[in-house]
Amino acid sequence: MPSYKAPVAETLFLLKNVFPIERFNNLPGFADATQDVVEAIVSEAAKLCEETLQPLNQKGDRAGCVRSPNGSVSTPPGFKEAYRAFAEGGWIGLAVDPLYGGQGLPYALFAAVGEFASSANMAFAMYAGLSQGALNALLVHGTEEQKKLYVPKLVSGAWSGTMNLTESHCGTDLGLLKTKAVPNGDGSYAISGEKIFISAGEHDLAENIIHLVLARIEGAPAGVKGISLFVVPKILVEPDGTLGVGNKVSCGSIEHKMGIHANSTCVMNYDGARGTLVGEPNKGLNAMFVMMNEARLFVAIQGLAISEAAYQNAAAYAKERLQGRALSGPKYPEKPADPIIVHPDVRRNLLEIRSFNEAARALVLWTALKSDIAHRSQDKAEAQAAADSLGLITPVLKGVLTDRGFDNTVKAQQVLGGHGYIEEWGMEQFVRDARIAMLYEGANGIQALDLVGRKLPKDGGRALTTFVGEVKSFVKDNESDASLAPYLKGLAQGLAHLEQATFWFMQNAIGKPDNAGAGSYDYMHLLGLVVLGYMWAHIAKAAIVEKANGDTGAMEGKLLRANFFMEHILPETSLRLARITAGAGTMMALEAEQF
Amino acid sequence: MPSYKAPVAETLFLLKNVFPIERFNNLPGFADATQDVVEAIVSEAAKLCEETLQPLNQKGDRAGCVRSPNGSVSTPPGFKEAYRAFAEGGWIGLAVDPLYGGQGLPYALFAAVGEFASSANMAFAMYAGLSQGALNALLVHGTEEQKKLYVPKLVSGAWSGTMNLTESHCGTDLGLLKTKAVPNGDGSYAISGEKIFISAGEHDLAENIIHLVLARIEGAPAGVKGISLFVVPKILVEPDGTLGVGNKVSCGSIEHKMGIHANSTCVMNYDGARGTLVGEPNKGLNAMFVMMNEARLFVAIQGLAISEAAYQNAAAYAKERLQGRALSGPKYPEKPADPIIVHPDVRRNLLEIRSFNEAARALVLWTALKSDIAHRSQDKAEAQAAADSLGLITPVLKGVLTDRGFDNTVKAQQVLGGHGYIEEWGMEQFVRDARIAMLYEGANGIQALDLVGRKLPKDGGRALTTFVGEVKSFVKDNESDASLAPYLKGLAQGLAHLEQATFWFMQNAIGKPDNAGAGSYDYMHLLGLVVLGYMWAHIAKAAIVEKANGDTGAMEGKLLRANFFMEHILPETSLRLARITAGAGTMMALEAEQF
Repeated sequence: MPSYKAPVAETLFLLKNVFPIERFNNLPGFADATQDVVEAIVSEAAKLCEETLQPLNQKGDRAGCVRSPNGSVSTPPGFKEAYRAFAEGGWIGLAVDPLYGGQGLPYALFAAVGEFASSANMAFAMYAGLSQGALNALLVHGTEEQKKLYVPKLVSGAWSGTMNLTESHCGTDLGLLKTKAVPNGDGSYAISGEKIFISAGEHDLAENIIHLVLARIEGAPAGVKGISLFVVPKILVEPDGTLGVGNKVSCGSIEHKMGIHANSTCVMNYDGARGTLVGEPNKGLNAMFVMMNEARLFVAIQGLAISEAAYQNAAAYAKERLQGRALSGPKYPEKPADPIIVHPDVRRNLLEIRSFNEAARALVLWTALKSDIAHRSQDKAEAQAAADSLGLITPVLKGVLTDRGFDNTVKAQQVLGGHGYIEEWGMEQFVRDARIAMLYEGANGIQALDLVGRKLPKDGGRALTTFVGEVKSFVKDNESDASLAPYLKGLAQGLAHLEQATFWFMQNAIGKPDNAGAGSYDYMHLLGLVVLGYMWAHIAKAAIVEKANGDTGAMEGKLLRANFFMEHILPETSLRLARITAGAGTMMALEAEQF
Repeated sequence: MPSYKAPVAETLFLLKNVFPIERFNNLPGFADATQDVVEAIVSEAAKLCEETLQPLNQKGDRAGCVRSPNGSVSTPPGFKEAYRAFAEGGWIGLAVDPLYGGQGLPYALFAAVGEFASSANMAFAMYAGLSQGALNALLVHGTEEQKKLYVPKLVSGAWSGTMNLTESHCGTDLGLLKTKAVPNGDGSYAISGEKIFISAGEHDLAENIIHLVLARIEGAPAGVKGISLFVVPKILVEPDGTLGVGNKVSCGSIEHKMGIHANSTCVMNYDGARGTLVGEPNKGLNAMFVMMNEARLFVAIQGLAISEAAYQNAAAYAKERLQGRALSGPKYPEKPADPIIVHPDVRRNLLEIRSFNEAARALVLWTALKSDIAHRSQDKAEAQAAADSLGLITPVLKGVLTDRGFDNTVKAQQVLGGHGYIEEWGMEQFVRDARIAMLYEGANGIQALDLVGRKLPKDGGRALTTFVGEVKSFVKDNESDASLAPYLKGLAQGLAHLEQATFWFMQNAIGKPDNAGAGSYDYMHLLGLVVLGYMWAHIAKAAIVEKANGDTGAMEGKLLRANFFMEHILPETSLRLARITAGAGTMMALEAEQF
């Protein structure tokens, strides 16, 4: 049976020492996030995740969701009670505007807690996670009436939310979608069509489900310029907020998937279901991007979260499992064999995971803070700079954290040898669950295209220039500190590769977009490595200060892992650069039949 | 539903043009392997695999194996009939000495066919695959009586074989094993103990199961020097070959695994079961290595095989799925969207898989031919050189083909987007099935240690010197051919990195074995990349000849994919070298508690 302890100390170190959130106490909600409050919240979340959510994780995988012939879906035993505890704890609305029932605390804090929940039980955490995307779309693009009608109930967990984008013939290419919206004459629309892959589309955890649905208003232009967003409740809501009659929306079937068995993935049928428009007609894509960006951060966190859960179990096994002797001679001669943690290759494996996890956790909080600044700062220049970084890093965070997070579950599984393949040990579930994060909310290849095709050239490359400037300033500001030199050196080298790759695109991809497409995935990972290296430099800086303050053991560990990242992981930037500059020539020269 | 077409043309190209097996017709069995015979065998195998084995693959995954309370195990519906067809086709004994019922054909041919079977249905192919290890151990180390009693029945498929090594407290470290053998006084032994992870340990496909079991004879020395190998039939065999009474061996339970559900993985209980010694007392490890080496080649082939099956389905999807438009403008303006094969990033993904598969297939056959020469050549020097290469490359083949093969199934799954995650499409089964190959028959970290700790230093580094010499000769012999230059250049660069890494070990790992351990995994992959690059150089050479002979389309495709490998895959050698030369310092400096 796998176990999980939330990394409370690590999270607090990041929020107090690496990126002290106190610094931002001019932002709304941050003044309330005093050290005491942060500590209490993080510890309380840890307790709930460890004691209530995690024990249901493996059971939920085995039981899965069950659809009855009437279309209702039951979640695994125990999920209802856990969901109630989660909702009543106020966790869903932690960072939501108090005007709509939330606590208004920093989003960074919500992201930290989100990691714990997804580590403990990813399939469970998705139910509440999807509500976030829905309520954010409503908060940004909804009418005051829609906000008042739906958001407080989504925040309280009485209701939950979904995102309905995909149809069987269109996932990435939403311009092809066919779901229809016909005006009812009273301001509402009748929605008809079939949506697939709808996570949490139907379940028994909440009394109502609020679907946000992309559809095409009759007579709208073809392609993405004719798509609108609608809010379509499972049960119609009266103007006073009470529940009315059932809407014409139902779950046609649930998918049999590789993992996240405890989350219901539904085919949803809309048969003239009543919905109201969110935002302007034919501008549904804008509203959808609000949900998508929220969802991408959430999915990135899942990549880290499962990597962390898998790591903990692999490290525990490596310290306990007795097998063979250290290459340099027995370390525990009194035992029949040494624990396998004595072997350098086992350590390499574990350090590849952990040196990622620590930097990824920092990156999640760094990005979440950018989101807080972008959305809450009154200083327009500061907000814009943060929004630029947020836009640039979001696809990187999603693509890189889920790719590397998945790879890490595979590495962690490997540490257990044959036991890693057996269901009982729980490691293979981490692999199966983590796999989806590379696929949904835009497959990672699409994240790479979004980065290279959209985010990079936008506003004359302003976002990348801002980011590179930030890293260079950090390097420059700290170059006189000899103890930081090893980390800054690796970072500067990675940054140079990033600039060379960017320059290569400028010279070779303008007018030849295939060269950008061919290198997009490697570029996403190159930027990801640099930003993770940047995080390690920040962590190392804070660790050196704390070590001087007397916290030697834990901080020395951090510095060694920072070394490891610089020696073993960051050099990959050079390979990524080589692959980017190879260009698209060879791959585009092949005819389709030659594949 | 996934599909599969055996790559008959590719295999024949390798056996006729790249490594013409005719050249070896002085070896026993090769004279019979005329072009006609090879073609007939490969085509016949393809037919059986496509029509009989593949249709059972997904069904077998769903049904799994079922153990009844009496300890018997049923395989999925259809497996019995398929097994009979497979056995009656003579496939199990294709390369076995005719003296014991085999056909005596080249092992290389058997390896080629083995790929098809594992692509079509890996879990099925394992039943017969395990018989190979058992019969080879008997052929090499058994008495004449044991050979006559067991081998012909294993060859005919009437019986099947197993390997019983692992116990719950010892997988890698066999010195810890506890299973006991007590002499019965009549030359036989009573075997008692529990073995775990026994593939095909109990099933309903054959009328008897011949277990090869590692155990410790009472009073034997501790550790690996006190281990002996025994043959223990499920049903005792009378001296005349007829079946007698049941032996005291039973299946205690079957494991619930991530994949290969259709192969029964058993806990086997030996309660004083009667067995006879194979080879000398306390020399069981030698006999076991015969099985292990056979099994490692078989597992390496699985890595390639699943990568190939996954590739075919991903490529087919990419050519059919309409989504978005080519970056350079619509390719099929008459369709609602272009097929996703127009996108460079989809091509990159597919080419990473295919450029591996083609080289890996060549490497399997190259290695199998080394095995043929090592075991059949009368020229001692030639046999020794082949045995050296075989010993050196076997762990690389196992580690690298299964690691990259698994990664490829993940990449192939990614091409299908969300559909890749749904069971129905079959892609996630490839991922789950391929995962085991990195774990069993020695987890890949152990392969790396075998390579760096044993194979590299053996005989003063003779095997690596021989291999490097072979590659250098190839480069030198062909350097005047300008059309080969792009491939030779990349290969020479990779080889230089390999030599630098080897030299670094010589300088830094003698006396500091942790430096060898820390770099072992990267070294295994570095050598793997070089040997795959060497295969591409061979393929390119043959393709250039064939292209001149008029076969342009297919050969141009091969040359482009060779380019891709040189541009995108082989440059990884530089990263591997950087990681090796980082050494063990950082990772060994951490205390166990810092993990």
